[in-house]
Amino acid sequence: MTTVTVKASRTYDVTIGRGLLAQVGKEAARLLKGRSAAVVTDSNVAPLYLDRVKDALEGEGFRVCTFVFPAGEASKNGATYLNLLEFLAREQITRTDGLVALGGGVVGDLTGFAADTFLRGIGFLQLPTTLLAAVDASVGGKTAIDLQGGKNLAGAFYQPLGVLCDLDTLDTLPPETFADGCAEVIKYGMIGGPDLLAKLEQGTFRQDPEEIVARCIAMKRDLVEQDEFDTGARQLLNLGHTIGHGIEACSGYTLSHGKAVAIGMALVTGGAAAFGLCPAEVLPRLKRLLQRYDLPVETAYSSAELYEKTLSDKKRTGDTIQLVVPTAWGRSVLHRVPVRQLEDWITKGAAQ
Amino acid sequence: MTTVTVKASRTYDVTIGRGLLAQVGKEAARLLKGRSAAVVTDSNVAPLYLDRVKDALEGEGFRVCTFVFPAGEASKNGATYLNLLEFLAREQITRTDGLVALGGGVVGDLTGFAADTFLRGIGFLQLPTTLLAAVDASVGGKTAIDLQGGKNLAGAFYQPLGVLCDLDTLDTLPPETFADGCAEVIKYGMIGGPDLLAKLEQGTFRQDPEEIVARCIAMKRDLVEQDEFDTGARQLLNLGHTIGHGIEACSGYTLSHGKAVAIGMALVTGGAAAFGLCPAEVLPRLKRLLQRYDLPVETAYSSAELYEKTLSDKKRTGDTIQLVVPTAWGRSVLHRVPVRQLEDWITKGAAQ
Repeated sequence: MTTVTVKASRTYDVTIGRGLLAQVGKEAARLLKGRSAAVVTDSNVAPLYLDRVKDALEGEGFRVCTFVFPAGEASKNGATYLNLLEFLAREQITRTDGLVALGGGVVGDLTGFAADTFLRGIGFLQLPTTLLAAVDASVGGKTAIDLQGGKNLAGAFYQPLGVLCDLDTLDTLPPETFADGCAEVIKYGMIGGPDLLAKLEQGTFRQDPEEIVARCIAMKRDLVEQDEFDTGARQLLNLGHTIGHGIEACSGYTLSHGKAVAIGMALVTGGAAAFGLCPAEVLPRLKRLLQRYDLPVETAYSSAELYEKTLSDKKRTGDTIQLVVPTAWGRSVLHRVPVRQLEDWITKGAAQ
Repeated sequence: MTTVTVKASRTYDVTIGRGLLAQVGKEAARLLKGRSAAVVTDSNVAPLYLDRVKDALEGEGFRVCTFVFPAGEASKNGATYLNLLEFLAREQITRTDGLVALGGGVVGDLTGFAADTFLRGIGFLQLPTTLLAAVDASVGGKTAIDLQGGKNLAGAFYQPLGVLCDLDTLDTLPPETFADGCAEVIKYGMIGGPDLLAKLEQGTFRQDPEEIVARCIAMKRDLVEQDEFDTGARQLLNLGHTIGHGIEACSGYTLSHGKAVAIGMALVTGGAAAFGLCPAEVLPRLKRLLQRYDLPVETAYSSAELYEKTLSDKKRTGDTIQLVVPTAWGRSVLHRVPVRQLEDWITKGAAQ
């Protein structure tokens, strides 16, 4: 078991290990004053783990109510968010009670946003059940819903009271969902860890995830502590995400986040090579690593389509857009480009 | 012209005076990096002041888009909130741009909540056009929408970049709307200002509002600076509001906030007298003052109805509820009562 302590506007622990879902009752009892807990989860996760979490909470004397919504990014919208808020009001959840987010990134983002805004803020615990949620959404306090106009366009910065990453849940992930998380893990390698990349190239990750998961969480923790509100160093975490969000939007959110980020990383690295910012050998090595973890490295959407969808991304400020650009194997930097140069970047990146 | 500086998590000025709407362009240019502004207002205020505000912004080089929704508390809901967010996305408002809330409390609460959550937070200016918004919503950063389950149940703490209180706008208020604001002004008197109450008993307020408006704003500023996140002293501002929200809910939000607060103040003061917490002479004097400003002091809803609706109020924590209770003329204290005592409090308060 590993514990990573995050010192943001609220200090909290991320615990990584096996058998942790059974501990959520004790953790909630320690962290909440009230004795009601609303567990939020989706239709994929509920049959697998909801009873275990409910039992653990009830075992510590909690009144438990549950909100289960249809699994998938399409549920991370305003309607589900408002339904969840009305549910909390009906269940008479008060300021000292708490929410428990049991699931992947969609569950965590939605639950965190509801926790931030219900009664102007109540506590929540996160129980990530996917690799992506464990290494990404569980640290940093970014909560969000998607708008018709784009992904994650509404949300808040809101830190959980605590995070339990139960590695047992990763064992039940379909290979595709595990691969999604690998895209983020490879991203951590590309922004600051040649040694992490070396471990991934060895390829024993799925068998023994604790060390790598804890390493990614600690890396994110370091960036979040430097820059909680995402105005500087933390933006490095967006490697592959700016164009990636455009790809997701092009697909009508039918392509997974991890796959879109994988393609986004390949495109932005290709662009960096074309503009002379990154040595040519980085891109093929990155593509091999992504493919090894069953991730795509190219897309059929045209540069014009990608450009248009990427422009609605919130990282745009005025006439420029912030990209994260690899400059070496395991090293990336922030790079602001004029909006009109973005299409060229995508075209050249795809041609590499 | 009077300026009150508020030092909350963000420091900003509230300026009180005449002719200030024409200054919003200069103020926005000083406070925003971007050059797009989304003006949010309602169908009552738009015909009166939208052109003036638009001209002032365009005169300073802003691209202005406008979102006008039907006036009234019924619009302060999740659907209007989501429509506003989608509008901002369509208009490609970015993080350095800003929102301008032109209107009363509903406009301010809704716009502030959208500003807090669009792109995880962009700047906004407040131009309160009602007395209520000037003395209440313009200071303190409480933003909100109503849920079906109750008023203001979702929202955030989010401070504006600046507030311009143009007293000219108070001249066009219908007598009923002016009276609504008077309920809040009388509330300030009851929580800490026998001298403010004395001025109100003289009754020259409408002719020369600047001193009293500035005094209320400064009083609120002092409480907000002590307690930005509303966990202590700031709760004094809820005098009349806990039961008041119950009254509003009973009426299906057809009764105005100010009237509900006036009745709420009378009921809680009556209860305080019945429980021996407040001298008997305070209640009749308060009722006379409320009536002098055209405000009601009683309701036809039964104690049982009020009790039920008041219970869904967010000031409930577990089995107790926080009331603000007058203990003298111009003095009030926080007083926590068991939930089950609340109906008794309302019944006895109404009987005084």
